[in-house]
Amino acid sequence: MNMKELAQRAKKASIALAAQSGEKKNLALEYIAQMLDSRKADIIEANSIDLQNAQKNDLEKPLLKRLKFDEAKIKGVCDGIKSLISLEEPVGVTQKATELDNGLELYRVTCPIGVIGIIFESRPDALVQISTLCLKSGNSVLLKGGSEAANTNRILADIIAEAADKAGMPDGWIGLMETRDDVAAMLKLEDCIDLIVPRGSNEFVRYIMQNTSIPVLGHADGICHVYIDSEADIDMAVNIAVDSKCQYAAVCNAAETLLVHAAVAADFLPKFKERMDANDAVIKGCEKTRGIISAEPAAEIDWKTEYLDNIISVKIVDSLTEAIEHINTYGSGHTEAIVTKNRDTASQFMALADSGNVFWNASTRFSDGFRYGLGAEVGISTNKIHARGPVGLEGLLIYKWKLIGSGQTVAEYAGGNKSFTHKNLEKNCDI
Amino acid sequence: MNMKELAQRAKKASIALAAQSGEKKNLALEYIAQMLDSRKADIIEANSIDLQNAQKNDLEKPLLKRLKFDEAKIKGVCDGIKSLISLEEPVGVTQKATELDNGLELYRVTCPIGVIGIIFESRPDALVQISTLCLKSGNSVLLKGGSEAANTNRILADIIAEAADKAGMPDGWIGLMETRDDVAAMLKLEDCIDLIVPRGSNEFVRYIMQNTSIPVLGHADGICHVYIDSEADIDMAVNIAVDSKCQYAAVCNAAETLLVHAAVAADFLPKFKERMDANDAVIKGCEKTRGIISAEPAAEIDWKTEYLDNIISVKIVDSLTEAIEHINTYGSGHTEAIVTKNRDTASQFMALADSGNVFWNASTRFSDGFRYGLGAEVGISTNKIHARGPVGLEGLLIYKWKLIGSGQTVAEYAGGNKSFTHKNLEKNCDI
Repeated sequence: MNMKELAQRAKKASIALAAQSGEKKNLALEYIAQMLDSRKADIIEANSIDLQNAQKNDLEKPLLKRLKFDEAKIKGVCDGIKSLISLEEPVGVTQKATELDNGLELYRVTCPIGVIGIIFESRPDALVQISTLCLKSGNSVLLKGGSEAANTNRILADIIAEAADKAGMPDGWIGLMETRDDVAAMLKLEDCIDLIVPRGSNEFVRYIMQNTSIPVLGHADGICHVYIDSEADIDMAVNIAVDSKCQYAAVCNAAETLLVHAAVAADFLPKFKERMDANDAVIKGCEKTRGIISAEPAAEIDWKTEYLDNIISVKIVDSLTEAIEHINTYGSGHTEAIVTKNRDTASQFMALADSGNVFWNASTRFSDGFRYGLGAEVGISTNKIHARGPVGLEGLLIYKWKLIGSGQTVAEYAGGNKSFTHKNLEKNCDI
Repeated sequence: MNMKELAQRAKKASIALAAQSGEKKNLALEYIAQMLDSRKADIIEANSIDLQNAQKNDLEKPLLKRLKFDEAKIKGVCDGIKSLISLEEPVGVTQKATELDNGLELYRVTCPIGVIGIIFESRPDALVQISTLCLKSGNSVLLKGGSEAANTNRILADIIAEAADKAGMPDGWIGLMETRDDVAAMLKLEDCIDLIVPRGSNEFVRYIMQNTSIPVLGHADGICHVYIDSEADIDMAVNIAVDSKCQYAAVCNAAETLLVHAAVAADFLPKFKERMDANDAVIKGCEKTRGIISAEPAAEIDWKTEYLDNIISVKIVDSLTEAIEHINTYGSGHTEAIVTKNRDTASQFMALADSGNVFWNASTRFSDGFRYGLGAEVGISTNKIHARGPVGLEGLLIYKWKLIGSGQTVAEYAGGNKSFTHKNLEKNCDI
């Protein structure tokens, strides 16, 4: 089946899937968890072929570890499915109810978006998490995983399709893209695909964003900042700055630049450097920073760089305003933290830093769907519309307006015979 | 000032505007209404120059009428501003509050999107409505109106900027684009502009959508359907079908295609035709339709055509399924109505028709922000993300996540010393 046919099938299935009840979708999720468990020997065997190929191709150790899909990981995804089942049905929720007139009622009701195209990294668990999230939210899904996981992804997608079919889900709601050409073809299928969620390297996400007119949910860079205010508690500032960078440096919510108010720089920086040294981390500093601690010189390019490594750039600023201007100039709209004892300063920072996540006295590393309690995470978005920051199930939903009348025509209202009441209704749509 | 400078100014202003209080924004709106009134003689004079030019250029009568901006219209926009002032402050509303742990609270809070680029038709009132909506929601706005209204738009934009400035709004939040080249340049400024709202002809909107990577909110076609079910009340069906087409044929929520169940076609169609004849409307019918009433022949192209005129295409279908498939194949996702006495049939139709607005026993012409009670309307969206159907003030908002901590680091949670509580909080963010 070529990409266009795959997408057309998914589009067709999405219509039927949107009308499935929560009970039936949960039954499908249950069957999926059961079948993943009952066929775990087959899954592990398929995965061992991928692992052998990866070893032959000298895949790096951390990647091998992510590729491995063993009994523990299968149990992990099945537990994830069970917690998904326990979530309230997200489709059909009334968001707004208005009486337009006697016997003319308007409801805004959640519904699935349609067909989601997702490109994800090498972990096969991502395939299970994403496709079950899409099923729960009533969306069709087209998936492209890492080619090194081809055999594992194939058997997982087959099992999920078969189990969902047993529960009466429409044929074709899940489709697997297998090549890069498939992905390139998908970018042109705006008639069939409603949203693309790319997960992967910055360059890759940027390539996707620039080569499709389909809406894209995600983020390219994660250039996060920590600003140490003149009224910061210095010990807290050191802890938060170190955690923001070093707790896990290779991720999008790690800090890349530290902005330090000049008034506390001489106190803060030596303590910070001591902890960074203990973490084998590198500091790149502006001129003023290097007047206080030894550091590599930072250039303009450093303010725009996502190191994804144990490296942080440090700039001394003279005011909150300068810090905010730096963030809004060089940041990527991901996550910014301020450390200060002054509530007003924190409030101003949180209002003026133009990012999806703004933190007061907490590490940037909290910027994450699991930590936010969103359940499964679709991704982290630096978009300015639809969904921002960590995105859970909600990001896969939109709404439709349902109007229930009894024969009303607009001519009666335009002619002045009738007029609108526009009364809020305290009830849910029951159709 | 060139387009890039205009957009950069607007971007800078949007940061400050996002942090303005509701009181100050309302004060600015008050000043705007006052100054529009106190300077109405100047406005009417500027408008008379546009009107004279338009007459010289033989502008059509209805366009002249829309272009005219007299005392009554000035009063109209001022009344609009007053009702905008009375709306609750839309920015800073807590949508979700979660305790992540003791002393670590997460809030999802509404905020403006940033910079909105709007291209609108010849009515100068649109400039006032749109820019005040943007101000109320805290967004900067770049506007391009019809060139025939250049003098009127210029003085209106100047007055609005001056009045807002008097209330302390940041300089540059409103900017006027004057040429088509400005619009073309805007489409490339994805660093400064966050959302484009194009209002105008289908071709124009499609051109915008295909030539920018900035998100676009709006609709190109409005190919709306009315489906007359086998269990329809025939008199109601005739009323709704006629109203959907003829109450105002030149608008996006007018019906273009009527789908009639075969079981009621012989009863319904002659009555429908009689009313259409009385409205001087043209019917284009499928083969079966033409076996019952006299009508011009409809071809495949008719199912895809937005006539924007007193013309409707009619197709006889054998089932609800066939009607839904027709709608999902040829429709534009705008508005679809079913006429039926059967609640289950209506429910299925509303679940399966993939459109932003699905109506049961009501005219498609109700699909409108004013009729929905949304207050001012930004536009009607056929997007599948962010905002769908008639879009009010809400469509100009997004949210940011605010996390309030007391020095927490992720290392404490990853190390198992602390764990998340993820408790819903019944309180609003107060910072």
